[in-house]
Amino acid sequence: MAVEGLSINLATVREQYNMREAVEACLKQGITAIAPWRDQVHAIGLDEAARIVADNRLRVTGLCRGGMFPADADGRAAAIDDNKRAIDEAAALNADCLVLVVGGLPPGSRDIHRAREMVAEGIEAILPHARAAGIPLAIEPLHPMYAADRACVNTLEQALDICDLLGDGIGVAIDVYHVWWDPELEDQIARAGTSNRILAHHICDWLVPTRDLLLDRGMMGDGVIDLKRIRKAIEKAGYFGAQEVEIFSAQNWWKRPGHEVLSTCIERFRTVC
Amino acid sequence: MAVEGLSINLATVREQYNMREAVEACLKQGITAIAPWRDQVHAIGLDEAARIVADNRLRVTGLCRGGMFPADADGRAAAIDDNKRAIDEAAALNADCLVLVVGGLPPGSRDIHRAREMVAEGIEAILPHARAAGIPLAIEPLHPMYAADRACVNTLEQALDICDLLGDGIGVAIDVYHVWWDPELEDQIARAGTSNRILAHHICDWLVPTRDLLLDRGMMGDGVIDLKRIRKAIEKAGYFGAQEVEIFSAQNWWKRPGHEVLSTCIERFRTVC
Repeated sequence: MAVEGLSINLATVREQYNMREAVEACLKQGITAIAPWRDQVHAIGLDEAARIVADNRLRVTGLCRGGMFPADADGRAAAIDDNKRAIDEAAALNADCLVLVVGGLPPGSRDIHRAREMVAEGIEAILPHARAAGIPLAIEPLHPMYAADRACVNTLEQALDICDLLGDGIGVAIDVYHVWWDPELEDQIARAGTSNRILAHHICDWLVPTRDLLLDRGMMGDGVIDLKRIRKAIEKAGYFGAQEVEIFSAQNWWKRPGHEVLSTCIERFRTVC
Repeated sequence: MAVEGLSINLATVREQYNMREAVEACLKQGITAIAPWRDQVHAIGLDEAARIVADNRLRVTGLCRGGMFPADADGRAAAIDDNKRAIDEAAALNADCLVLVVGGLPPGSRDIHRAREMVAEGIEAILPHARAAGIPLAIEPLHPMYAADRACVNTLEQALDICDLLGDGIGVAIDVYHVWWDPELEDQIARAGTSNRILAHHICDWLVPTRDLLLDRGMMGDGVIDLKRIRKAIEKAGYFGAQEVEIFSAQNWWKRPGHEVLSTCIERFRTVC
């Protein structure tokens, strides 16, 4: 029986499975939507990955990830080239979008204002390629604790401001982990709906205590995020796409059998999301 | 020779010194402004702490901390009582303000909206006592990574909205560690200046990588925060009070000799702040 409305970001089982194995395990439990990471695609080859997607009629709710724009001039040029390749890969996989983790401060820099400009410039540079390929770009605002080293776009408002600046073919990936705390969240979700900018909806949970800045995300229901409230706000804004589970969990979920992780995702998706 | 414009939050040397020893070590290096924590005051007794402050003509740039309002009904009543005692202690120490770390979600709750209401209600309940005592209340917005367990007020904008709601006798403590990432930071600092709400300016630095959510703050200059830019924005907003160094550093600064920590604070204050 198919599990409607649930997608598995393959980072969630990256320690257990390669992409081929992950798809097999998902299908066995009725999950027909996935979001792979580029390293997972590269590990089995883009052609093979595309064949797996097509043969199994998988929905690819996003390819992770492009971005990482702030750098010196050479680094920025290299990032733009790499992002164009990522767009081509997303197209080959028939993905709903390319997720952008935009990047933090260049090494040695303390200038977050300039880093943010570099992000907008970088996205502007790849946008024509994305439009031509029919791949929407999804800016994922990351939690402020990643502002220095992963993404200097840290609120939905900031991401939507960039979208408004750049026009069509670009939107946002709303990951509850990054935005649940934001006092402006519901207003900005509504704004994103009005301008048709919601491209993805990622779920997991915020654990108390959180023991690691990067690799201690929780399974839905094990933390403090009001997932249903956020889901309803996103639906009210007109987005009814899949909820994509993305959990980085070095000490817990990455150590469990993959089938157990997937069945838990399904159960929690049905009960707390 | 006195070090003008520098205050030491005594948490910075809490593993090395009690309050009496910390004051002695500060004075030896010409530092005449401090901000103690309540547990440090209690450890030597409020009368003795007040005597040390008065005898040495210390400037007390803040008492840490009141707050922690969200709870069940009994817990909220207890928090209000405790905050009133904190106000009395701040008055006895002739402190510039009582710093409020407002609290996160009550145990078992996922309702951050209600927690935020509880914060405003709690502050409203203690404000008459604070006004009568002549102690301004300084809401300290905490970094969003503490939204669940320490403070559900996470931006300067949010803190200033509460101030505007409640009127006189209340303002903000701006700690660069918590707000440096905020795209609205400079606008909100300007707003805080216009309404005369800036009560304290805390400094330290954001390390890359950050290894612990709570106890891995950096010494000024060792991280990525543009301290001078923020200081200038705060001065432009009309605040010229001391910069108060507050560093929680379990693996580094708390393990070094206290005099070395203090001399490093002075040197960095003079060169990078």
